[in-house]
Amino acid sequence: MSLNEEVDALRRVPLFARIDPAKLKLLAYASEKLEYQFGQDLCKQGDAGDAMFIILSGEADVTISTPGGERVVAHLGKNSFVGEIAILCDVPRTATVRAKSKLSALRISKELFFKLVGEFPQIAVEIMRELALRLTQTTKDLAKAKAA
Amino acid sequence: MSLNEEVDALRRVPLFARIDPAKLKLLAYASEKLEYQFGQDLCKQGDAGDAMFIILSGEADVTISTPGGERVVAHLGKNSFVGEIAILCDVPRTATVRAKSKLSALRISKELFFKLVGEFPQIAVEIMRELALRLTQTTKDLAKAKAA
Repeated sequence: MSLNEEVDALRRVPLFARIDPAKLKLLAYASEKLEYQFGQDLCKQGDAGDAMFIILSGEADVTISTPGGERVVAHLGKNSFVGEIAILCDVPRTATVRAKSKLSALRISKELFFKLVGEFPQIAVEIMRELALRLTQTTKDLAKAKAA
Repeated sequence: MSLNEEVDALRRVPLFARIDPAKLKLLAYASEKLEYQFGQDLCKQGDAGDAMFIILSGEADVTISTPGGERVVAHLGKNSFVGEIAILCDVPRTATVRAKSKLSALRISKELFFKLVGEFPQIAVEIMRELALRLTQTTKDLAKAKAA
């Protein structure tokens, strides 16, 4: 993929939609594009986490290990981001993310993440929004599970 | 409370600890300080949400209504913030927050919130961090509840 094609792909990610294309070129340079095959892990629960991922194409499952075995807690598709918890909270990966198809992802290092958030408040707002949505959904699921 | 005392109180809130005291004066002007008695609601599940709250002193319960009645899902103490979900996601309040003691809180309007996040990336990082921590805890609780 040429740099221009890569910038074009980044512009279609809602997280970056409002960022100046010239800045996206820098992001395309500074981030790493990775390809995964079906069944490969982007990250593994318990591992140290030093990057987040943005899925450019393909799908993934988020699983956590429970006393009863591995449990799928979320599905991710194109434009989803994942892995931000470990870099925000300095904790090991809280879940495993596994490709369910051929998958292409952007790997954003912790350092780049904090740089982006500092420079583009809109990215921080989108990430806060997504975390808040996930929290709302998980809290609802928890209330349901406890009531059952 | 004088303006200087108020700025002093704000500096002790971790969310604002790294902000220039001169800027905190503006925050003290732009935000609203509210006092609650035991049992009073800071916000009510289902209501429109146009502000977040930072608890300066006192304690509160976060409750959600379930088919089985009202359920306490979290406790909040000094320096906690709450109510950010409704302003981030443009949804009605997802929970009720009720004072468990005499309580003093800073009310930050939606407009001021986005201004602060735009001007001080550190505030965005702290809020993302807190949301990520809450999400991790809730996801763990959910896995436990489902395994039980």
